[in-house]
Amino acid sequence: MFTIKWNGDSVTILDQRLLPVKEVYNTYRHYSDIADSIRNMETRGAPAIGITAAMGIALAAKNIELVSLDGFKEEMNRVCDIFTATRPTAVNLFAAIGRMKNIIQQENDINAIRQLLEKEALAVLNEDVEANKALGKNGSKYLSDGDVVMTHCNAGALATGGYGTALGVIRAALSEGKNIQVYACETRPYLQGARLTAWELSREKIPVTLITDSMSGHFMRTGIIKKVIVGADRIALNGDVANKIGTYSHAVLAKENGIQFYVAAPTSTLDPNTKTGDAIVIEERGVEEVAYIMGVQIAPEGVSIRNPAFDVTPAKYIAAIITEKGIVDNPATQGIGKLLKS
Amino acid sequence: MFTIKWNGDSVTILDQRLLPVKEVYNTYRHYSDIADSIRNMETRGAPAIGITAAMGIALAAKNIELVSLDGFKEEMNRVCDIFTATRPTAVNLFAAIGRMKNIIQQENDINAIRQLLEKEALAVLNEDVEANKALGKNGSKYLSDGDVVMTHCNAGALATGGYGTALGVIRAALSEGKNIQVYACETRPYLQGARLTAWELSREKIPVTLITDSMSGHFMRTGIIKKVIVGADRIALNGDVANKIGTYSHAVLAKENGIQFYVAAPTSTLDPNTKTGDAIVIEERGVEEVAYIMGVQIAPEGVSIRNPAFDVTPAKYIAAIITEKGIVDNPATQGIGKLLKS
Repeated sequence: MFTIKWNGDSVTILDQRLLPVKEVYNTYRHYSDIADSIRNMETRGAPAIGITAAMGIALAAKNIELVSLDGFKEEMNRVCDIFTATRPTAVNLFAAIGRMKNIIQQENDINAIRQLLEKEALAVLNEDVEANKALGKNGSKYLSDGDVVMTHCNAGALATGGYGTALGVIRAALSEGKNIQVYACETRPYLQGARLTAWELSREKIPVTLITDSMSGHFMRTGIIKKVIVGADRIALNGDVANKIGTYSHAVLAKENGIQFYVAAPTSTLDPNTKTGDAIVIEERGVEEVAYIMGVQIAPEGVSIRNPAFDVTPAKYIAAIITEKGIVDNPATQGIGKLLKS
Repeated sequence: MFTIKWNGDSVTILDQRLLPVKEVYNTYRHYSDIADSIRNMETRGAPAIGITAAMGIALAAKNIELVSLDGFKEEMNRVCDIFTATRPTAVNLFAAIGRMKNIIQQENDINAIRQLLEKEALAVLNEDVEANKALGKNGSKYLSDGDVVMTHCNAGALATGGYGTALGVIRAALSEGKNIQVYACETRPYLQGARLTAWELSREKIPVTLITDSMSGHFMRTGIIKKVIVGADRIALNGDVANKIGTYSHAVLAKENGIQFYVAAPTSTLDPNTKTGDAIVIEERGVEEVAYIMGVQIAPEGVSIRNPAFDVTPAKYIAAIITEKGIVDNPATQGIGKLLKS
């Protein structure tokens, strides 16, 4: 199983829309198909879409046949803009595209640019996996033997280059011999928890129990859930976290029940240009994601629907932000500045 | 549109499992089909299942052809037991069955019992509709012109004999000329909000916006939702409320955001025999309700799943309990004793 793979002249992507019923991999040779793959959520997860965009840009560079350097650079900048417009909330996407843009700007030989872009795309992937393993190790101290740990959405191998962020911390704790059980929230509307997290963990025989998003409070109040850990799509300077819709609700419920709520994310998710969560653009996706579940209509024809894909969890609900470069405890008291300096 | 109708020799029930795509009414002549209808959630909602059970018992009495009074009573008690076992959490069910049992016990003429049971079943229905209208009028003062009011599950005409409890309060406020918009949580796993509340309100042209359960916190924090009102399946002596899974989470989120959280229910929902919410039996339903949505598989084969159908909201989160006999403000300070005396 892998999320995304670079083949030199193509990119292979696991179609996450078909999970958990079918495990299908699609190979694309054209960058526009790869942009579609991010847009239509064939692949998803903040780190994974950054990697996918980088690979799409590297592939585009290989396929452009233009004689002039200026024409090549112009076309490559257009390609970068297309990837920038695929999804608005995850900062990793813009960070990865920024790395590619720097190469396009600084180098002045088409073939050198092509080679450097390929190298950079692979670096984005490899650094992500290494970062996940490092942050997993950093965060595992928060999980105790016997804990039932709740997570939301999919912040696992499927959302990243591999290993995962929130699930990376759980994997690290398990590898240290701790007995951990996972409660996975199904994560409506797109069901990443039911379709992806439950699938990813079941496959590795990590004990996982699926619940609906509405059950998290009940299982916290009744003492089943001991810790909560989630990923992030963007972390503001003051420690506010944008993550999958529903995250804020779980964080408030955790606080009310005296349960520690952790955020695990690579430093590529940190956004020093965003002062607080209020400045984060929340993507509003199509109403059909709520009205239809895998093609089946569940709402009356034409009813008004809201579909924000993310919400903002203020720093005061977060016990710690765990990254590959270190941890910020009680981010509400200090923000994330410490992680940006290192 | 109606939820349940008595035809003298049969009962017609709206099949709520097929909404919102199909509006199908089924007519049953045998009590066991009516018990099935409660068990398999063709009809649902605490008040509605009480009415349905009463009608099923009245119908059974008509169909039993036994010569001896003792044999008749024995058979009727068996029928009552079957209805008692259909679902465990809603107290209205047991209250309605209790009324029927009293008649069976006290009367000693088979035909008289038959007539009295029919009369009583219709009384259960009519009293419920009257109670809803009265509690709607009692509670409408809490809703202000221009409010966006969130509700969970379906506590509307479809959950009752008609008019509704939580939606009854909204209907009353609308009938007083207040401009009210409803945010309906879809209510996983059974989607009563998406399938029933959105359908019921759309049909009457009451402005309704559908959201997933995971969005309630986001729309409270961002100032969209101004009030929350829900129904109840059982209310304990201290004011703790059992209601559809997810209710507790919304209540905590409302408190955290300074939003008033109301419970609207007929006094048949009050349970003086249950001291606190901890003593309420929470029905755990089949895992397929979570793993499949209207026949479509959304979870990996064989994954562990929990499916509690209800949760308990402690009284401290509730601003007021609204009944047809009056209101208890801040139930945490006084319990529901006041409503039991009247």
